[in-house]
Formats: sequence, C-alpha cells, structure tokens
Amino acid sequence: MNIAVLGTGMVGQAIAGRLHELGHSVVVGTRDPASTLARTEPDGMGNPPFAAWHAAHQGVALATFADAAAGAELVVNASNGNTSLELLRLAGADNLAGKPLLDIANPLDFSAGFPPTLFVKDSDSLAEQIQRAFPEAKVVKALNTLTASLMVDPKSLGASSTIFVSGDDAVAKAAVVGLLESFGHDDVIDLGPLETARGTEMLLPIWLRLMGALGTAQFNFKIVR
Amino acid sequence: MNIAVLGTGMVGQAIAGRLHELGHSVVVGTRDPASTLARTEPDGMGNPPFAAWHAAHQGVALATFADAAAGAELVVNASNGNTSLELLRLAGADNLAGKPLLDIANPLDFSAGFPPTLFVKDSDSLAEQIQRAFPEAKVVKALNTLTASLMVDPKSLGASSTIFVSGDDAVAKAAVVGLLESFGHDDVIDLGPLETARGTEMLLPIWLRLMGALGTAQFNFKIVR
Repeated sequence: MNIAVLGTGMVGQAIAGRLHELGHSVVVGTRDPASTLARTEPDGMGNPPFAAWHAAHQGVALATFADAAAGAELVVNASNGNTSLELLRLAGADNLAGKPLLDIANPLDFSAGFPPTLFVKDSDSLAEQIQRAFPEAKVVKALNTLTASLMVDPKSLGASSTIFVSGDDAVAKAAVVGLLESFGHDDVIDLGPLETARGTEMLLPIWLRLMGALGTAQFNFKIVR
Repeated sequence: MNIAVLGTGMVGQAIAGRLHELGHSVVVGTRDPASTLARTEPDGMGNPPFAAWHAAHQGVALATFADAAAGAELVVNASNGNTSLELLRLAGADNLAGKPLLDIANPLDFSAGFPPTLFVKDSDSLAEQIQRAFPEAKVVKALNTLTASLMVDPKSLGASSTIFVSGDDAVAKAAVVGLLESFGHDDVIDLGPLETARGTEMLLPIWLRLMGALGTAQFNFKIVR
C-alpha cells in the first residue's frame, strides 16, 4: 500500500520503518524536508535527529506533508497532538478525503510541566476534533496507548497484550486492523465509534504514571477477560 | 480488624461480605439504618434491596455513617462519587482522623446520560478532593478500576490481572495492600502519591466503553511488562 506517515519523531520513525520492512511504499511527511534533513541536533527528548534515522532507511521517502499525503492510500498522523490539526491542514483536506487516517496522536499539554494534562478530554477527543476538521477523512484512532517500539513490535513484550481501535468507518477500521495484525498485534479490541477514542486518549495519565512507577516504557495494557 | 464500609450498594455489599468472610469485624454505614432496611425495591440499577443482602449476611452490622466510622480502624468509601464528600462529612472528620480511608469511588457524572463523564479529572481527582476535605484521614485510592465482584475475587477471571494503589501515607497504603492481597490480588502496582489517582479515575471512560464492546463487566486491566 502507498502510505504517508506525517511526523518525523520517534513514532513516525517506528511506524515508517516497520511499514517499509513489511513491503509498503512509505513517504514520511514533514514541514520542510530540506530543513528536517539539515537538523543535526537531538530532539527535545534527546533522540537522534531524523537525518540519522533516514540514512539507515533510504527506502523511505521524505516529502512535504501535502506531497506525502497526495500520493497515499492511507495516512498516519504520527505528530504531537498539539500540532496535529495544523499539520493536517498543511497536508490538505483534499489529500485526506476518502482515505483512512490512522490517528496515533495524544492531546498532551506540557505547558505546566510533567506529567502533562490533556487539552481535550472526557466530552470530546483529539480524534473527534480531527474528524470534525476533516469530515471527508476516515479517522481511525489506534496505537496511542503504548510506546513507539511496542506499537510496531508488541510481541517483544513476551506475552499477548491488547490494542484498541475506534472509528466510524468500517472499511477504514478494517484496513487499520490489518496493519495492526501485520505488526504482531494479536488482541485487537474494536471499541466502536470514534467517540470511544475519549477512552483511549484518557489512558495517557495512567500510562505516564505507570512509566514513572515501573521505570520503563516497555509495558502495555492487556484486557483480561 | 474493625472495618467500616460506607455505602450499601453493590460495591459496599461485595467489600463488606468479603471482609466478613475473611474474619474482620465489619460495620456497614448508611444514612439511616431503619430506612435502608425498610427499602424493598431494587436500586436504580435493578439490584436487590440491601435488606435482602443483609438477611444473608447477619454477621455484618449496619449503623449510621458516624457510628460505623467511630468504631473502625480502617474506613472504606464505597459510595457513589457524587455523594462521597457529603457522606464522609456525615461520617465525621474526627471519626476518620488518623485512619486509612480506602477510597473506591469514581467521579461519575450521569447528568448527561450514558456514558457518564467525570466531574473532576486530569488536574485533580476525587481522591485528592477527599484528602483535602479530610486532611487527617489517610486516603488510599484502589479498587475503582474493576467491577465489584472482581474487586474481591480477581482470581475468578482465571488469569492474573493488575490492581493499582495511590496514596501519600506508606503505612495506610501497606494496610490496604494487605487487604487487596487477602482478596486474591497478586499483581499490585503502587503508582505513588495520591495524585496518581487521576490516572486510575481516568480509566473509567475506557472501562465503560470496554463493557459496551465486550458485553460484560467481567474483565480487568493487566499491565504486561
């Protein structure tokens, strides 16, 4: 499949690398490809610059948000939540129309420090904000409940864990579930319509505190039933 | 131990019954014992009236909130979240002072129908509201993340699942962990100070949607790591 991954951070890198490895044609979208490749400093979290990752993943193309989305059959929002709407506007509503839009972003607000709060929650969600802003896109929320390396390789935990999907379009949801299964997810729970993303986005507060209590991000939720 | 369980609903019944079975001296607290026992209709959720449960659990005493709390070494808040502060005021700050207060309540707001939203969240929690209102009580949040029958018998799921504790007082937290282990909980994660209850209270939105998607309340979170 032709897939655009919008965002060059850890999540974008993990998803783009894994999709390429699985044989998809992947274009990573960024604001300005030249300046993204020119950046030589670590990001705010201390991760290596995108150029270092890209040098090791030559098969993945880099383009503007709009060019990446234009050629894609499926688009992945791998941006920080506080930039998602702006970034998707740059990608262009026309380039998103009719396509599955896998939304991984979380509405984290770091303005008061750590742990962050959520800038939308409870009676609304970032996924629904995106859907309202781009009514012709087929938004599916998934993968926002675990760390990047486990998103694309859940089996590395050594035991089965759960991934959640929320979305209003059954065909788009099926396409996303197919990708999740190809990543190794063997317990996918379809929560229902996109409003159920309120539930998965509101997992972030306990996720952040679990990371503190356990001293690692290498964990995931399993729904035992 | 002498334990007061404040609340006569499904959670109060489950906790009180199990504690009594484990050999504790249990008093259930209610607003007006005579009228609680006189009620013959099912509650709003269709559950049998308290009197029916009490007839089968004669060893559990029933008293006013204040009388129940006065004689207790540990107090359990098993009320609905929207009544917790009022009910604890009836129990009396003096009767809570210096004691572990296990808070199971969730800040559910049903005023706009189902699924409920949360009336406090993200930058505060019900547990912290209770702690601020009763600074001499030693609030420990736990058990608010699963259905009543599993709170007291998690092994009935057939596989290990996780329970979370949050609290600022180490001794009170240890006492609660002891009770949880006696119920059969074999994976207790201490999230840290009471503010981490924001994380567990914010699990409710996905819990409610999982109940819808799975068609049962017989499930629990397991943190796979």
